Amino acid sequence: MKAAYLVRPGTIEIREAPRPEPGPGQVLVRVRAVGVCGSDVHYFEEGRIGDTVATEPLIMGHEFAGEVAGLGAGVSGMALGQMVAVEPAMPCGHCEMCLEGHPNLCLNIRFMSTPPDQGALAEYVAVGAEQCFALPAGLTAADGAMLEPLGVALHSLRLGHVHLADTVAVIGCGTIGLMTLQLAKASGALTIFATDKLDDRLALAQAYGATAVCNVSREDPVAALVALTGGRRADVVFEAAGAPESPEQAMKLARNGGTVLLIGIPDDDRIGMGAGTSRRKGLTIKMVRRMKHTYPRAIALAAAGMVDVRSLVTHRFPLEETQQAFRLVADGGDGVIKAMVEMG
Amino acid sequence: MKAAYLVRPGTIEIREAPRPEPGPGQVLVRVRAVGVCGSDVHYFEEGRIGDTVATEPLIMGHEFAGEVAGLGAGVSGMALGQMVAVEPAMPCGHCEMCLEGHPNLCLNIRFMSTPPDQGALAEYVAVGAEQCFALPAGLTAADGAMLEPLGVALHSLRLGHVHLADTVAVIGCGTIGLMTLQLAKASGALTIFATDKLDDRLALAQAYGATAVCNVSREDPVAALVALTGGRRADVVFEAAGAPESPEQAMKLARNGGTVLLIGIPDDDRIGMGAGTSRRKGLTIKMVRRMKHTYPRAIALAAAGMVDVRSLVTHRFPLEETQQAFRLVADGGDGVIKAMVEMG
Amino acid sequence: MKAAYLVRPGTIEIREAPRPEPGPGQVLVRVRAVGVCGSDVHYFEEGRIGDTVATEPLIMGHEFAGEVAGLGAGVSGMALGQMVAVEPAMPCGHCEMCLEGHPNLCLNIRFMSTPPDQGALAEYVAVGAEQCFALPAGLTAADGAMLEPLGVALHSLRLGHVHLADTVAVIGCGTIGLMTLQLAKASGALTIFATDKLDDRLALAQAYGATAVCNVSREDPVAALVALTGGRRADVVFEAAGAPESPEQAMKLARNGGTVLLIGIPDDDRIGMGAGTSRRKGLTIKMVRRMKHTYPRAIALAAAGMVDVRSLVTHRFPLEETQQAFRLVADGGDGVIKAMVEMG
Amino acid sequence: MKAAYLVRPGTIEIREAPRPEPGPGQVLVRVRAVGVCGSDVHYFEEGRIGDTVATEPLIMGHEFAGEVAGLGAGVSGMALGQMVAVEPAMPCGHCEMCLEGHPNLCLNIRFMSTPPDQGALAEYVAVGAEQCFALPAGLTAADGAMLEPLGVALHSLRLGHVHLADTVAVIGCGTIGLMTLQLAKASGALTIFATDKLDDRLALAQAYGATAVCNVSREDPVAALVALTGGRRADVVFEAAGAPESPEQAMKLARNGGTVLLIGIPDDDRIGMGAGTSRRKGLTIKMVRRMKHTYPRAIALAAAGMVDVRSLVTHRFPLEETQQAFRLVADGGDGVIKAMVEMG
Repeated sequence: MKAAYLVRPGTIEIREAPRPEPGPGQVLVRVRAVGVCGSDVHYFEEGRIGDTVATEPLIMGHEFAGEVAGLGAGVSGMALGQMVAVEPAMPCGHCEMCLEGHPNLCLNIRFMSTPPDQGALAEYVAVGAEQCFALPAGLTAADGAMLEPLGVALHSLRLGHVHLADTVAVIGCGTIGLMTLQLAKASGALTIFATDKLDDRLALAQAYGATAVCNVSREDPVAALVALTGGRRADVVFEAAGAPESPEQAMKLARNGGTVLLIGIPDDDRIGMGAGTSRRKGLTIKMVRRMKHTYPRAIALAAAGMVDVRSLVTHRFPLEETQQAFRLVADGGDGVIKAMVEMG
Repeated sequence: MKAAYLVRPGTIEIREAPRPEPGPGQVLVRVRAVGVCGSDVHYFEEGRIGDTVATEPLIMGHEFAGEVAGLGAGVSGMALGQMVAVEPAMPCGHCEMCLEGHPNLCLNIRFMSTPPDQGALAEYVAVGAEQCFALPAGLTAADGAMLEPLGVALHSLRLGHVHLADTVAVIGCGTIGLMTLQLAKASGALTIFATDKLDDRLALAQAYGATAVCNVSREDPVAALVALTGGRRADVVFEAAGAPESPEQAMKLARNGGTVLLIGIPDDDRIGMGAGTSRRKGLTIKMVRRMKHTYPRAIALAAAGMVDVRSLVTHRFPLEETQQAFRLVADGGDGVIKAMVEMG
Repeated sequence: MKAAYLVRPGTIEIREAPRPEPGPGQVLVRVRAVGVCGSDVHYFEEGRIGDTVATEPLIMGHEFAGEVAGLGAGVSGMALGQMVAVEPAMPCGHCEMCLEGHPNLCLNIRFMSTPPDQGALAEYVAVGAEQCFALPAGLTAADGAMLEPLGVALHSLRLGHVHLADTVAVIGCGTIGLMTLQLAKASGALTIFATDKLDDRLALAQAYGATAVCNVSREDPVAALVALTGGRRADVVFEAAGAPESPEQAMKLARNGGTVLLIGIPDDDRIGMGAGTSRRKGLTIKMVRRMKHTYPRAIALAAAGMVDVRSLVTHRFPLEETQQAFRLVADGGDGVIKAMVEMG
Repeated sequence: MKAAYLVRPGTIEIREAPRPEPGPGQVLVRVRAVGVCGSDVHYFEEGRIGDTVATEPLIMGHEFAGEVAGLGAGVSGMALGQMVAVEPAMPCGHCEMCLEGHPNLCLNIRFMSTPPDQGALAEYVAVGAEQCFALPAGLTAADGAMLEPLGVALHSLRLGHVHLADTVAVIGCGTIGLMTLQLAKASGALTIFATDKLDDRLALAQAYGATAVCNVSREDPVAALVALTGGRRADVVFEAAGAPESPEQAMKLARNGGTVLLIGIPDDDRIGMGAGTSRRKGLTIKMVRRMKHTYPRAIALAAAGMVDVRSLVTHRFPLEETQQAFRLVADGGDGVIKAMVEMG
């Protein structure tokens, strides 16, 4: 089969690889759609994320869906040809975090496309049956691939406890930010303030339900939110930009006693997080680590049309053009929100 | 009457001032004991805390107790001579935060010893009746003054949700840290790990119930806690040092899914708060802003002997030697934990 | 002025009464709309609610709005003619419950239309300024009167923590039930199951967003919900019927680990609450006592059209026909949901 | 091997049975101590608990500890001869409740000594390795058996969120009640009010830390607690009697806004739970279903002496006298708290 390998920073090659066999408890999935995630692009550009280095050629991709193409020993209840979204995390199931219901914090976690585990940018992958979630007829493979970032947004909303009539701020209108915004609206937020530095993203934010937007390259978001809310600011702030300055900004956007969710991936322990501001306000800050238990609900929300994941896919590429897909996302041009690699 | 005024950074003078008259709803308190707090010392050294500047001579002191010496119009239920601890915060009672039960986050808060409000280092003060809490016979005026920092510790514990058999880490063994440690023990924590850079404080920590201590000037606290807990680290971390490096350290001491309370007062929004570490662990970070609703419970705990506040008072001064008291705390010498100014 | 007095069970008389004068801190309100509440009807039928007896002629009515017609001493920031909704509860502001932000649980609560306090079925009432909430132009007086029951629904939702994609069950489709249902939908519930014994109410429930309904006089609601959800049942159950059998039913409708909110007013401590069922499921049961801090958000939700309160008003009466309004609600005929008494 | 079979209500016979073989992932445990639990006695007296009927001879007993006597395939990290406490619940590990960290609410739960699963009153049992928790040297087998009820108490405390200086009421001073009381004290409760109808149990309650007790056969506990607390009542109430009248009593003992934990096993969905009282107070009621994740912490607490489980064992019997042990507990005489069956 074909697979897209990151062979060195900046270079992805399509190579032949042996088709995997599903082991006991596993399912062979014929991959149909793989979203390009920011963390994939980080490997593409740097060859590493923090201390995790891609020393061997790495198949990237962990936002994906495909068809069931084979069943390992002991797997039942799944039909060949069934379209499934695949959860890329592989928690151990036995540590304190897993037992207490927090597999996203598993002490022995493995994750597809994180060395030494390969990812999904290949014609076939073998995954655990418990990682597979059947998609209803109305959802496409690309929709299924979008459930992974939707899960992160859903987990963030669950942590954030948005209440009816809340004011919510969303920093950063990429895929996660725009999903978070939609879910905040579906949770009953009344005022939704979104920021980005790109006007086309802010236009999307408004189309998805933002009641006010702010281009941070032209305007101070804190002043804008203060004006919008008569000084009260936001009950809940979702930071989904991952920029070095945005955690501190998040603290300034929150009201006294508010909650800040940091979803974006900061580079560095030493970046400021608004210690003085957040202490004076008595904030609660929750750090969002991936997601847990989200696939069934993410499927239900997407199937019911309560969240629109499909229109976030702005660009589509065949497997052979994976390099171009990554280059596009790395450069951030052409209004790209989500680039999707689709196979046959 | 006499009062101790900060007349310029580093200089406190005892001056005559008119004895205040209690207005409607107020109580005149003959002050008997005033603790010297770190924030007082900050004014003493810098003449300001952040944007709040002592432009006029400032009576400092907000940890205090005294005797009821007069009652304003409309005040009942309080006897002359009754010893009372006084809550120094004066929330407005009408804003969203006050109505919802968070007076510590009041949008219009005033606070004794914060300009333009004078503090308690005087023979008499007039305060609101609702600020006064009667002390039982077993508690002294100095004990009563200690209830203010005890309230901060108690509020921190309430936010921290320590559970039975938890592992708790306390960073910084000053007054607040040592109180927090005692309260964590009273809440059922089993392993209590305390850090400081002074050995005499660590000896006190052990006397108050720490099961392990670490002198951070000689040993890496993260490595020490990892060794102590077999790699699991702490369920709840209380940062009570206020040092620039301690928030980041707090994140490293917490277990996956743990809770970090930042009690110490950081100087700067730009200090690192361990963004990467805390995100990977999915931490909840709660910023502690003073306290709320703590006096009745603080009195009960102190009266019952469940917390020992008395032995934390290491040094005592008459009002005339307020300057020396502040100098001692500012320099941090002679094993000082809490310096108490006592009158008559 | 005219006022509608309950003079004995079953009999309301319109009598002349002195127009009240607004005292210090009070507002004189010219009443424009008063909703008839089930607890009013309880007084109408029994002359009492539990131990609280209407021994003197009682002006009932506590769901109301009107125009500012006079200001007592010390009241500012309110214009004559301004339409306001009025919060009927008068918490003391000083007890432990009030200070901690739970005025609905005030130990010294007074409540309009509960002896000895008179209610709002009169041309004028004098109320505390803090009880008045200005209505925006788009909301009518009757809308304003509906904010009181909406507040109860909103408080219930806040306690219930409905999450995105939850399954919610609502028992009883009266005013509160239908409001709760709308708010559950606005909170992101995906499956909303509503029960009642009247088909016209169930038709309304569907119009407001119920995805499945059950007429309990013809069908077992537990079997129906089990069938609907593949045995999983509801994440959150709102009991808004107040029928003796509905608490036990609520426990059967909840999933393992679910939450049950009892909003309806049960007659009797001895009614069953499904002790065995709820214990085996490990349920959390929250008893809903009125509401707290809801007016600003209720106004915002109604003004934004996120909840439709207007169409719940099925019958309108002038003040002179208050007796007929109460008779209609007591009999429950003619498809009545909310009867509104409107003045000039 | 020998095993104690319930052959019909009221009759336990010691019979020979084949020694079990540990299957893959299992451990063979040589049983050393088995506590007699109230639910065992329910089977002993009635032959059933609700709909679960002991149609075949049933080996009872699920509070137990013993020595590792054999290891099935794939089990490592456990030494022969190691003393282990055994968790009797066998959750499926795959349902929504298990995945989300609530194995006590598992939809497919099996439980030792609940038909069709046999219990531990036998010389040997084979159990899953994940059910076994190594005991430190200071704990005996009987101590280990006590960890099962201690787990229930610990889970109750975790749900109850006892805060420092809280007033706690404990209804019923049997094993669970006395453990709950000890844990409430270890959690920082200041006033602990315990009720029972037996004076010897109340004397024990005082020895374990109750600050006030009430014999409900002579005195009204509600009046007693009102007098004790100046009318405020309890922050948290633990109902551990399982008597039909105690849930309603629990509601009366709670303060406004308080929390009630129902631990006792009520017979009947129709018993009163104080609906009117609890609604007026806005109570939160949590139904306690067994326990989750408690063994490691229960072991640590017992080993550290923070809870005294040993002195709760009032009577000891050899396996051959299991019938007498059950008869004693069923009759409730001779001051029995916990009867322990001990082998060799």
